[in-house]
Amino acid sequence: MPRIKLTVEYQGTHYVGWQVQPNGVSIQARLMDAVERLLGERVPVEAAGRTDAGVHATGQVVCLSTERVLPLKAYWMGLNSLLPEDIAVVHAEEVPAEFDPRRWSLGKRYRYRLSNRPSRSPLLRATHWEVFTPLDVEAMRRGAAHLLGRHDFSSFRASDCQAAHALREVRRVEIQGERGGSLSIAVEGTAFLKHMVRNLVGTLVEVGKGRRPADWVADVLAARDRKRAGPTAPAQGLVLEEVFYGDGPPPRTPGGMADGGDEE
Amino acid sequence: MPRIKLTVEYQGTHYVGWQVQPNGVSIQARLMDAVERLLGERVPVEAAGRTDAGVHATGQVVCLSTERVLPLKAYWMGLNSLLPEDIAVVHAEEVPAEFDPRRWSLGKRYRYRLSNRPSRSPLLRATHWEVFTPLDVEAMRRGAAHLLGRHDFSSFRASDCQAAHALREVRRVEIQGERGGSLSIAVEGTAFLKHMVRNLVGTLVEVGKGRRPADWVADVLAARDRKRAGPTAPAQGLVLEEVFYGDGPPPRTPGGMADGGDEE
Repeated sequence: MPRIKLTVEYQGTHYVGWQVQPNGVSIQARLMDAVERLLGERVPVEAAGRTDAGVHATGQVVCLSTERVLPLKAYWMGLNSLLPEDIAVVHAEEVPAEFDPRRWSLGKRYRYRLSNRPSRSPLLRATHWEVFTPLDVEAMRRGAAHLLGRHDFSSFRASDCQAAHALREVRRVEIQGERGGSLSIAVEGTAFLKHMVRNLVGTLVEVGKGRRPADWVADVLAARDRKRAGPTAPAQGLVLEEVFYGDGPPPRTPGGMADGGDEE
Repeated sequence: MPRIKLTVEYQGTHYVGWQVQPNGVSIQARLMDAVERLLGERVPVEAAGRTDAGVHATGQVVCLSTERVLPLKAYWMGLNSLLPEDIAVVHAEEVPAEFDPRRWSLGKRYRYRLSNRPSRSPLLRATHWEVFTPLDVEAMRRGAAHLLGRHDFSSFRASDCQAAHALREVRRVEIQGERGGSLSIAVEGTAFLKHMVRNLVGTLVEVGKGRRPADWVADVLAARDRKRAGPTAPAQGLVLEEVFYGDGPPPRTPGGMADGGDEE
């Protein structure tokens, strides 16, 4: 039975998030509708990780299995003709039957975009958090350095996060751009807790505004208490850019994948 | 009587263009509505140049005169609270009473954005022309070089262009990006004919697709015949980025400003 891996881009603005929910239209539902029209059968479509309402993706990875044998082009161009304008398949490939987009993932890269101009920006508002206070980007970089490595990220998880534990590894936090312009914060790690990137960004922005020193980020991390971190940055600035895979499932380690809490 | 110069950003997607028209909502009308609410009087708001339906701006320059004396902040933050989300004032300053945003302009820079990925892109579709055929960007650069300088741009003007003549000077055409990714084409010149940038881009894309050699651009320019150029690139890729000014009106020269045909 062929198993198909799709790389999907979407603008999350008008969706309740990746996962099917009773209160509105999800990206998963739209994708399952398109797949059903393509295959003539309704099959589950699983993702590497859930994205929350309003969050975008350029490299979400989803997977499905079907008895039908179709050329890969059908999953790419065919699905694109059936999907709404704000969802697209950008790549399709066949993978081993055991491939699991979540459990096989070696890590992910998210990007968070901020506009730091003094005025609101009509062209950036759908994809950026508009922070009008001038930000000290160097202080944010010093603060971000405390996040690197393997830590208990309890201070940065949403209160309703379902993960079994909060041990995660952040491999890279890179802040590009400068005060008064556009900023882009790339965060790469093995796995993420619910709202983890948005809480990290909200905390770094407190530092950037000068409300807290850069070293405060280390204190927040050490406290393992959500109430200590900065506010959750809004959804529209976040993009799931890439999910990394090797040739098979990674070794199971605490703080690796597969504890069910991965959601941004 | 104070004269106020505003720099305006807008996403043109949902508008019939800059200018008030009977067939839909224009950016000019929305701006005049907001100004009327701010000042308590309806005054004309003139722009440096018209932009066509669907075209965006980050640096459109508009001007108004009023008997009322208000702090500049009222024109910036005050108007922004009265304008819809897709229009914003990014700068306000007082200028001499004789300042004319069109006649005083020394030139403009437009930017045209293309996505050259093989798939459509939900996150780029509002601001990019999606060209799926891989483009030979080096050939496009060689083609663009023919456009530099002072020429009769009749081949690149819309059939209903109102300009008195087609002599224009293009100072810079710079193509950034690469095949398969995003491309950005900056075009700077003294003044522009209706649809001139979009027709230049449509012509360069014919070269990029390999349908025509780079030197064909010189032939099209020499022909002074609109039927010879490539198709008009779609509106959503175009942004009016900046209008340049000196300390006063520029000397009147043929092919300079003020012939009434400036519209993209």
